[in-house]
Amino acid sequence: MSESPLVTLRLRKNAERRIRAGHIWLYSNEVDTKISPLRNYTAGQQVIVEGYNGKVLGTAYINPQTLICARMISQNPEQVLDKSLLVHRIKVALGLRELAFPTPHYRLVYGESDLLPGLVVDRFGDVLSVQLNTAGMQVLEDDILDALEKVVKPQAIVLRNDGGMRKLEGLAEETRVARGTLPDEVYLEENGVKFHVPILTGQKTGWFYDHRMNRARLQHYCKGKKVLDLFSYVGGWGVQAAAAGASSVLCVDASETALDEVEKNASLNGVQDKVETMLGDAFDALKQLIQEGERFDVIVLDPPAFIKRRKDIKNGELAYQRINQLAMRLLEKDAILISASCSMHLAYDRLIDIVRSTSRHVDRQAQILEQGHQGADHPVHPAIPETAYLKSLVVRVFRD
Amino acid sequence: MSESPLVTLRLRKNAERRIRAGHIWLYSNEVDTKISPLRNYTAGQQVIVEGYNGKVLGTAYINPQTLICARMISQNPEQVLDKSLLVHRIKVALGLRELAFPTPHYRLVYGESDLLPGLVVDRFGDVLSVQLNTAGMQVLEDDILDALEKVVKPQAIVLRNDGGMRKLEGLAEETRVARGTLPDEVYLEENGVKFHVPILTGQKTGWFYDHRMNRARLQHYCKGKKVLDLFSYVGGWGVQAAAAGASSVLCVDASETALDEVEKNASLNGVQDKVETMLGDAFDALKQLIQEGERFDVIVLDPPAFIKRRKDIKNGELAYQRINQLAMRLLEKDAILISASCSMHLAYDRLIDIVRSTSRHVDRQAQILEQGHQGADHPVHPAIPETAYLKSLVVRVFRD
Repeated sequence: MSESPLVTLRLRKNAERRIRAGHIWLYSNEVDTKISPLRNYTAGQQVIVEGYNGKVLGTAYINPQTLICARMISQNPEQVLDKSLLVHRIKVALGLRELAFPTPHYRLVYGESDLLPGLVVDRFGDVLSVQLNTAGMQVLEDDILDALEKVVKPQAIVLRNDGGMRKLEGLAEETRVARGTLPDEVYLEENGVKFHVPILTGQKTGWFYDHRMNRARLQHYCKGKKVLDLFSYVGGWGVQAAAAGASSVLCVDASETALDEVEKNASLNGVQDKVETMLGDAFDALKQLIQEGERFDVIVLDPPAFIKRRKDIKNGELAYQRINQLAMRLLEKDAILISASCSMHLAYDRLIDIVRSTSRHVDRQAQILEQGHQGADHPVHPAIPETAYLKSLVVRVFRD
Repeated sequence: MSESPLVTLRLRKNAERRIRAGHIWLYSNEVDTKISPLRNYTAGQQVIVEGYNGKVLGTAYINPQTLICARMISQNPEQVLDKSLLVHRIKVALGLRELAFPTPHYRLVYGESDLLPGLVVDRFGDVLSVQLNTAGMQVLEDDILDALEKVVKPQAIVLRNDGGMRKLEGLAEETRVARGTLPDEVYLEENGVKFHVPILTGQKTGWFYDHRMNRARLQHYCKGKKVLDLFSYVGGWGVQAAAAGASSVLCVDASETALDEVEKNASLNGVQDKVETMLGDAFDALKQLIQEGERFDVIVLDPPAFIKRRKDIKNGELAYQRINQLAMRLLEKDAILISASCSMHLAYDRLIDIVRSTSRHVDRQAQILEQGHQGADHPVHPAIPETAYLKSLVVRVFRD
């Protein structure tokens, strides 16, 4: 609890319905700026939120310069976000992961869904990789690191404060070892397969835990199969396919560094003889493979977000359509396509419809065998649709 | 291919868009009844379907007395549904199941999605349980049984022609052993757990394979936990929870016969000491358990369809709300709720919103850990949204 009483932030009429339903974002146009002008607040400041009629809704932290100008901390007006609450909520987050996963490799904190908006922590055994994505979390950096040390007792904590969100929040980018000593190499295990983590140089925190369950499902369709892994990054899908008994795997990525990691990860699991790599743009690679008359039993299509903002939806859907179509043309007569998307703005039904129209375009039948989602370490907050973004279809594509 | 040319069925303008998109149902109000009066056709007759302009769209079979008056067989106007095509499509259906499942226990044919509209076949090892749900399939009974014998070589085929759909199609109800000799007892294995199948007397075909994957996921959350299984039927969820290491399981069902099967299935897997049963209506049982001060770590809520028709949506959603709320009140402080629905008319987002509002009502936080769907032996046809109906949320319910 805070020593000094917090100042208040007043909402406009009708702005509070979403908050009462459990959402935790406040938009700048929802604030009654006559009563509480945003310029009066500092970035990261904690406040009491009041409805238009003065009724207290809870506490929040502010960033006066962003579209989402405040994120709720609690509905209890006496609850501030301090080390004590950080420790409590990190413990609650840890409880879930320890229930859901057999080894200490997971997203330990998934921001809003763990009631810690703006904070992301990935755990790789004794090493934590942290992203402070908002000013509200940045001002708490020391408390957060202390709380993580207290709850998890890691060997090292890395700050991967180089995400795109920080710029919007007015925060500088930095990557550094913030606590402890980083071991020479960091590893993780996912679905029984071991991976090396490029913790300081890889994308985001170094690894994408969100597809864990979908990669587990991939393993069920791979035995004895010829597999193509597009946008492979460090081989999360491809190496798991090989470990699950695929006869061969081709990993395609535009980054040479990523493909070096694929080879390292294949060797780690003794499947280096089955895994090949191909450097290049995925669209170009698909066209080349089609020209060469190649065919695959299983193709994994896990592209980066083609739709980053709402206004990209139309073009992004066309891109998904194009790449799915190219992939379908490379499939054997009765084959499996894993068609994934991490674009929050692509509705699940739209992805299914893209698969439908694409399969008709190439004169194939399609059956949706499975609809995958992000794993339990990326829980969805039921009042915050924005916390759900990952899709992964297992599609059988065949000729009738 | 048929010896005699088929007669035609003419569609109205604008009726064909859905068919061109890949859907296979034709509604009676989409037929140009001036050119092709429905009374001219017999139930089960196969026809060539023409667009409003006379262009051929493919073949279909008809039932002139139902709202869905025809179901497409093929886009190839020379393709009729005969023994040869039945054998082909059952083989294609079998190929998927053999790829996806380790033992011969699955839905072998899932109607529309396997391009065999109106036909359902569940496989329990050497025994098949068949539902002919349309007149179009009923007239092919002998060919279907022949085709199944040819492709699968079962020991027995049971006709479970007692589903509600047959009445609408003008078909009589009957349950009988149509081919071979039924063994004294029929068993299946699901996720490594063995069950007895009440093949002649149980609900539907005797078993619900659709929740297979969701029950597999349940097993991950059960170790050492106290579990409540509501609407347990023969114990599909509850016995799997016990086999996965639950400390105790209470199965609640309104049918004494079903609970006898629960006990049989518990014994089959050596977990009879952990599984108890309670006879009664689920709503009443929940209220009684609340009054008794009981608490559970994991509750499985897999009710029958509360929304059978579109007009039931409002009342049905209220029923889901009520039962989810009762279940949440029985949960320990940090616990798991499996909230399922087999109502096709309940959108997935609505179920999530029911969990959201319910958790707020009982002053708990909720995290959606997993969003489950029907398994790969109930594939979704991407052009037929009606083939997707099953939902199963894994929800963590806790106090902040």
